[in-house]
Amino acid sequence: METLLSQIKNPAELKKFDRLQLLQVAEELRKQIVSTVATNGGHLGSSLGVVELTIALHHVFSTPEDSIVWDVGHQAYAHKLLTGRQQEFATLRQLGGISGFPKRNESEHDCFGVGHSSTSISAASGMAAGRDISGAENKVIAVIGDGSLTAGMAFEGLNHAGHLKQKMIVILNDNEMSISPNVGALSSFLSRKMTSKSFLRFKKDTESILGYVPGIGKELVNIAKRAEESIKGFMTPGMLFEGFGFDYFGPIDGHNLDEMIETLQNVAQIDGPVLLHVMTKKGKGYEPAEQNQPKFHGVGPFNSETGVVKGSSTNAAVSYTKVFGDTLIDLASKDKRVIAITAAMAEGTGLTNFSEKFPERFFDVGIAEQHAVTFAAGLACKGMRPVVTIYSTFMQRAYDQIVHDVCLQNLPVTFAMDRGGLVGADGPTHHGVFDLSFLRHIPNLIFAIPRNEVELQRIMKTASLADQPFAYRYPRGNGKGLPLLEENEPIEIGTGELLRDGNDGLLIAVGTMVSEALSAADLLAVQGVNVAVIDGRFVKPLDSKLIISKAENVPFVVTAEENALQGGFGTSVLELLSDAGLAVPVLRVGIPDKFVEQGSQEELCSRLGLDAAGIVSKVENIIK
Amino acid sequence: METLLSQIKNPAELKKFDRLQLLQVAEELRKQIVSTVATNGGHLGSSLGVVELTIALHHVFSTPEDSIVWDVGHQAYAHKLLTGRQQEFATLRQLGGISGFPKRNESEHDCFGVGHSSTSISAASGMAAGRDISGAENKVIAVIGDGSLTAGMAFEGLNHAGHLKQKMIVILNDNEMSISPNVGALSSFLSRKMTSKSFLRFKKDTESILGYVPGIGKELVNIAKRAEESIKGFMTPGMLFEGFGFDYFGPIDGHNLDEMIETLQNVAQIDGPVLLHVMTKKGKGYEPAEQNQPKFHGVGPFNSETGVVKGSSTNAAVSYTKVFGDTLIDLASKDKRVIAITAAMAEGTGLTNFSEKFPERFFDVGIAEQHAVTFAAGLACKGMRPVVTIYSTFMQRAYDQIVHDVCLQNLPVTFAMDRGGLVGADGPTHHGVFDLSFLRHIPNLIFAIPRNEVELQRIMKTASLADQPFAYRYPRGNGKGLPLLEENEPIEIGTGELLRDGNDGLLIAVGTMVSEALSAADLLAVQGVNVAVIDGRFVKPLDSKLIISKAENVPFVVTAEENALQGGFGTSVLELLSDAGLAVPVLRVGIPDKFVEQGSQEELCSRLGLDAAGIVSKVENIIK
Repeated sequence: METLLSQIKNPAELKKFDRLQLLQVAEELRKQIVSTVATNGGHLGSSLGVVELTIALHHVFSTPEDSIVWDVGHQAYAHKLLTGRQQEFATLRQLGGISGFPKRNESEHDCFGVGHSSTSISAASGMAAGRDISGAENKVIAVIGDGSLTAGMAFEGLNHAGHLKQKMIVILNDNEMSISPNVGALSSFLSRKMTSKSFLRFKKDTESILGYVPGIGKELVNIAKRAEESIKGFMTPGMLFEGFGFDYFGPIDGHNLDEMIETLQNVAQIDGPVLLHVMTKKGKGYEPAEQNQPKFHGVGPFNSETGVVKGSSTNAAVSYTKVFGDTLIDLASKDKRVIAITAAMAEGTGLTNFSEKFPERFFDVGIAEQHAVTFAAGLACKGMRPVVTIYSTFMQRAYDQIVHDVCLQNLPVTFAMDRGGLVGADGPTHHGVFDLSFLRHIPNLIFAIPRNEVELQRIMKTASLADQPFAYRYPRGNGKGLPLLEENEPIEIGTGELLRDGNDGLLIAVGTMVSEALSAADLLAVQGVNVAVIDGRFVKPLDSKLIISKAENVPFVVTAEENALQGGFGTSVLELLSDAGLAVPVLRVGIPDKFVEQGSQEELCSRLGLDAAGIVSKVENIIK
Repeated sequence: METLLSQIKNPAELKKFDRLQLLQVAEELRKQIVSTVATNGGHLGSSLGVVELTIALHHVFSTPEDSIVWDVGHQAYAHKLLTGRQQEFATLRQLGGISGFPKRNESEHDCFGVGHSSTSISAASGMAAGRDISGAENKVIAVIGDGSLTAGMAFEGLNHAGHLKQKMIVILNDNEMSISPNVGALSSFLSRKMTSKSFLRFKKDTESILGYVPGIGKELVNIAKRAEESIKGFMTPGMLFEGFGFDYFGPIDGHNLDEMIETLQNVAQIDGPVLLHVMTKKGKGYEPAEQNQPKFHGVGPFNSETGVVKGSSTNAAVSYTKVFGDTLIDLASKDKRVIAITAAMAEGTGLTNFSEKFPERFFDVGIAEQHAVTFAAGLACKGMRPVVTIYSTFMQRAYDQIVHDVCLQNLPVTFAMDRGGLVGADGPTHHGVFDLSFLRHIPNLIFAIPRNEVELQRIMKTASLADQPFAYRYPRGNGKGLPLLEENEPIEIGTGELLRDGNDGLLIAVGTMVSEALSAADLLAVQGVNVAVIDGRFVKPLDSKLIISKAENVPFVVTAEENALQGGFGTSVLELLSDAGLAVPVLRVGIPDKFVEQGSQEELCSRLGLDAAGIVSKVENIIK
């Protein structure tokens, strides 16, 4: 039997459906989402949570004339299925397939590309301003989760949009659970558990006043009780948003289609900024995801009947993330100054065990990378050794704080960047391929990249002993399966390692590309070309002695890194050799000057020549 | 007669003074601050506004055991004078002198270095956490202005500190005027003008309830009126901060020493996060500064009797800032899509006239660089051509938004970066010397640097026609005195200009260094060395054809830029020549791998060899 969903080629068709049909569409959407994510992996919980909200939005509004900006975007699967992408949905997050996030060049219904959190209010506000300037009449809607509201950027957007009194709708999708359980006093606004000292004072005052009215005291106290309820009702959660100039409505049940459609129709008539508070449940309608929300936030392939996640590979090696988490526990148990800080990613960065073992030395600041870094600077001022643990791509948010609050003051803050390099299916918004370029020029900063999990251990030890800012990055995925160190010795700062000698050429690589360089050397040796291989290890300071001493005795140098070719590791080698007056030809392997699409890490590396074959082909070009 | 101030070698001595003596100290501080700033220039208004607050803080607390974090820091002159820096105060903002901002390596009383806004709550929160972990007892105080509160980072800090329930004091220094008049709905919290719809609803409900009580309706209405006042009182401005978990006190008069000392003593006893709201007047006690607050925010040398600012130079050339502002008006009058956006710097970026001429196309978003950029992205999605005008150093705050929201989507947003290069007396927190390095690797971005004001005009025209992200940077100070263009023609993207030919070497410079390169060529010609000079003009894309065609016919290349040597323009030339297989030696003139101190732009450039002499000396080194 043909599904209702399959008849929807365009979201406008939803307008013709009655409520029962819409409920059936919701059911069909959930089935489709679960089955595709079970196969491809993806963000399940958020997308299941907003199925009714998505239907209601497309029933009431008309994209692409109206603009719906999905914050972060991992909740947009239902939106994709309703806007002409059912055929392609099976390719979700795969090489050449549709993105796991809204993307402007994928559909005219995706008005704003996302991936990083908390941009939606700013973008929607800009769209509303553009609409008003050009005299258009379309609606602009931002859909933002409660977790995304922690980021300062969301407040900047609220503050400005409220000031402008723009006609726009912000839908607060409140599932009381962002990626990690919500952090911050802000959540008390939403949980309605806030008690205001001022309110308590007021209450006391009022009761006194009432007490003085002769004769009818008791009756008045009853009135006061009712008034109190009323006051509590208006104090939270609406007052925050009303303070910012938004009309507040809600909270309403985000799984009640009737209520949502009616409310959306009403708020669409209001001529200023509106905030509609919608309560939803992550994973709604799929029992395993409702029961274990963190696990099904972003999940690999799983059995859709049972919810059991499939083993990802036969590789017995542990992940870099786990090595990081375990090693940090080890360091912290020996040094009371070691503090772990993360930004709403305790699980993703492997810090869950740390947080249990050292609760007083663990800080999850919420989605607030800027604060995380400057908070760490404050800790360092008091003699602590904070380790700020944030994915490479999200560390971009704190660039200024790294420069201004940490490195300018030469404070001993460590930046541990997980997901450095290509991350795979999450695509261009999540690849961590700029960190070498945006950090390398900052004075006082040391920057190292481990080639395997044991090197990660040693670099972490080194960082913990350094008396200055220190960054390291390691990739998404598993290590090389090496036995981990029991006794962890530091590395001398600024020293690389000559892993293989040879005089026909020199390969210098960092991180994941070191093993590829070694494989390339093997392949070249078969051709009779014996190249040396250096693990650069430190992007900054470079091991200038080792590199120059080898480089001046070979006919060519090839550098390799999982980073943009502009301003990265290979470039630092160019600078070094140029400054040293060495005229040896250098070829650089890295990411060309474009954004890299989604796909498995292996597929992407292979396409970009970031592997042994790519290095060999560079060498062959030189030799010719 | 010896002043009281001169007896204060250490802030602890303030504790011995009685109230009359403290008032005299306040008077003496103001005199000293006005007279020094009249000579050296500096931030006058903010420092005069917090004289009593600073005295009260040092009277009640004990630095360096207690930590006072001054947000932005341009209000810290009284603090400097009270903490052992009276002798050095005359060197304020001069080469080798004391900084215009708190600086950790200048005094143990400066617990946190600042310059960029809105970091104080995060830093203080980190310090409080460090104190608690180490079991210490000292107090931590952040002093933040109402303008700084616009930045999302301040909210991230409030949210986390409130969540942690840390013992710390945030002093909101509310002068109802940040650098520009305050922006944003947030200010309504502070102005107490907020009307809440919920409140109005509540009021109506309550009146109805009261109406039903038989017989005594009128009496109750009076009670209700009093209750209403009480409700209004607690609703704002405290409720915002109480929502974040802070105990709110105030507002109190920031020029009433008695009240402040008593209040600080009281709040110091409270065992959780406290926000103390202090009302101050910018420029307090110096009539000209009270009357013209924006002018005396940051001011050059002036006559302290009259308040008349001294003419800064005999140079008749207009500033780059003015050329930018006038040219943008010209572009906007011909193209309705042109929008100007700034972040609390309308005057500093030359947009005041624009804002008057095109109020509907001008947006000052407050201190909110992240929002500014993504707001622009939203405008671009609706067909507009936004120009985001922010000082180079503050653009660092929006790095992620430039990557993720603008360049990844290839949206036609222009980034106009004033104060590119060395800025002078404001020093290391304000130099704009990283922008080439942190922007050059971003795909899709065009990046140009004008060598004079006419080139700025043409580059602006070029950007307005480009269908993709476009950045340009121009220096602080005056242009070359060239007649401005009436008819502004664009430049072909990616084309440099051969300004002088020669075969004995090649100088390639950008921006301010082009005229230095030309002077160097003159000097070298005297020595019989005839070098070619190219204005690179585009950092990205490079004019590879022009550069390679010249570089392959000369014995050496020297590049010159006012940017970090790591990853900047010279590096891009290295990458180009290496990729082209050219082995010509390249020497790069630029800023070495360290933070540059304060001093006049000329002094700093001379010290760093960023001038004709520096270029000549590089060339002489090569020739030898």
